[in-house]
Amino acid sequence: MKTSDFRFDPSQVRTGYSHSTIFKEDGFGMNYCSSCGVRVLTQVPEGDHLPRQVCPSCHTIHYSNPKILVGAIPVWERKILLCRRAIAPREGYWTMPSGFMENGETLQMGAARETFEESLARVTIEDLMSVINIAAHNQVHILFRAQMDSPEHGVTLESSEVRFFEEAEIPWADLAFRTVTQALTHFVEDRQRGQRTLHLVDLETTRP
Amino acid sequence: MKTSDFRFDPSQVRTGYSHSTIFKEDGFGMNYCSSCGVRVLTQVPEGDHLPRQVCPSCHTIHYSNPKILVGAIPVWERKILLCRRAIAPREGYWTMPSGFMENGETLQMGAARETFEESLARVTIEDLMSVINIAAHNQVHILFRAQMDSPEHGVTLESSEVRFFEEAEIPWADLAFRTVTQALTHFVEDRQRGQRTLHLVDLETTRP
Repeated sequence: MKTSDFRFDPSQVRTGYSHSTIFKEDGFGMNYCSSCGVRVLTQVPEGDHLPRQVCPSCHTIHYSNPKILVGAIPVWERKILLCRRAIAPREGYWTMPSGFMENGETLQMGAARETFEESLARVTIEDLMSVINIAAHNQVHILFRAQMDSPEHGVTLESSEVRFFEEAEIPWADLAFRTVTQALTHFVEDRQRGQRTLHLVDLETTRP
Repeated sequence: MKTSDFRFDPSQVRTGYSHSTIFKEDGFGMNYCSSCGVRVLTQVPEGDHLPRQVCPSCHTIHYSNPKILVGAIPVWERKILLCRRAIAPREGYWTMPSGFMENGETLQMGAARETFEESLARVTIEDLMSVINIAAHNQVHILFRAQMDSPEHGVTLESSEVRFFEEAEIPWADLAFRTVTQALTHFVEDRQRGQRTLHLVDLETTRP
């Protein structure tokens, strides 16, 4: 793996997440209990060490957890299929097909579904290539290498343009997100070395 | 990887998730809009292909996504640290330290935190070992190899007993979950072969 080993500091368990930080996290926008409709309170439950949104009426504790984004680098005869985003954020910039994993899926099913939804490409998902932690945004991006079953592809509601790129043509300056840059770098560097490795990366981000 | 390549069937996108199935998924227990407190409806939003819980008043679409469980196989001088569960489900059975990933964490941070919370062991997280899809339960389990910083460990609220096991002593018949069996099998087989590999596995489960 390309990341340094992570050494645990137990003090982080309590001090790593300040209340002011965690209250801004996705999912902490809950106002009303989704079970019974009463206004929730924010408090650290008995035996817990993090603030949660808790219902004072039915006592449900509403946990909020990181989301998984899945995607693929679809390849046909060494060419890479990329999509130009038709939607915000970063409309007009290029990305590999990817999106949030759905309930009822495996990672591979999600990556193949997102590929089809964004590019109309049908792929066989191959090996796990990049696992990218984005702790500040409560996301883990999980990206696979993929082989296209045919060269067929097309534009979709989410992609205004879908086309093949040779390695030398990759639009590095016009990529939509840093995770796209990371994944394409992993893909290209590995292929140039003739190997397939797993890249576990922590992406530092500052909140807007 | 030890799994067969996943081949995409676009017909799965629409037919793979029946309404009756998805309505039983975790997270589909929402009754009231968490933003404005009005009763939600279940419908397929415009441009979507899956049923979501939608607020008829503030129009928020409430997505529900798979959760990540993180954990570690903590090792000290070739011995493996396991925990006997003090809580339901599967109280009294053995597991490696693991639990749900929290917002604001990386996978490695979560694995180290769960290890400390369940066994009082402080570890250095090493390489990614097992990624286990449990599509029927909307979970992905992500498990790391870990080196203990010292042999110190102890019981916790979640673990009634925490102790070292030699490989030959692993209580295979008394493990808490199939994911525990999978991860320990990956660990032991890899170590016997003198290698560290990534295992991507789909765990078939039927609902209770």
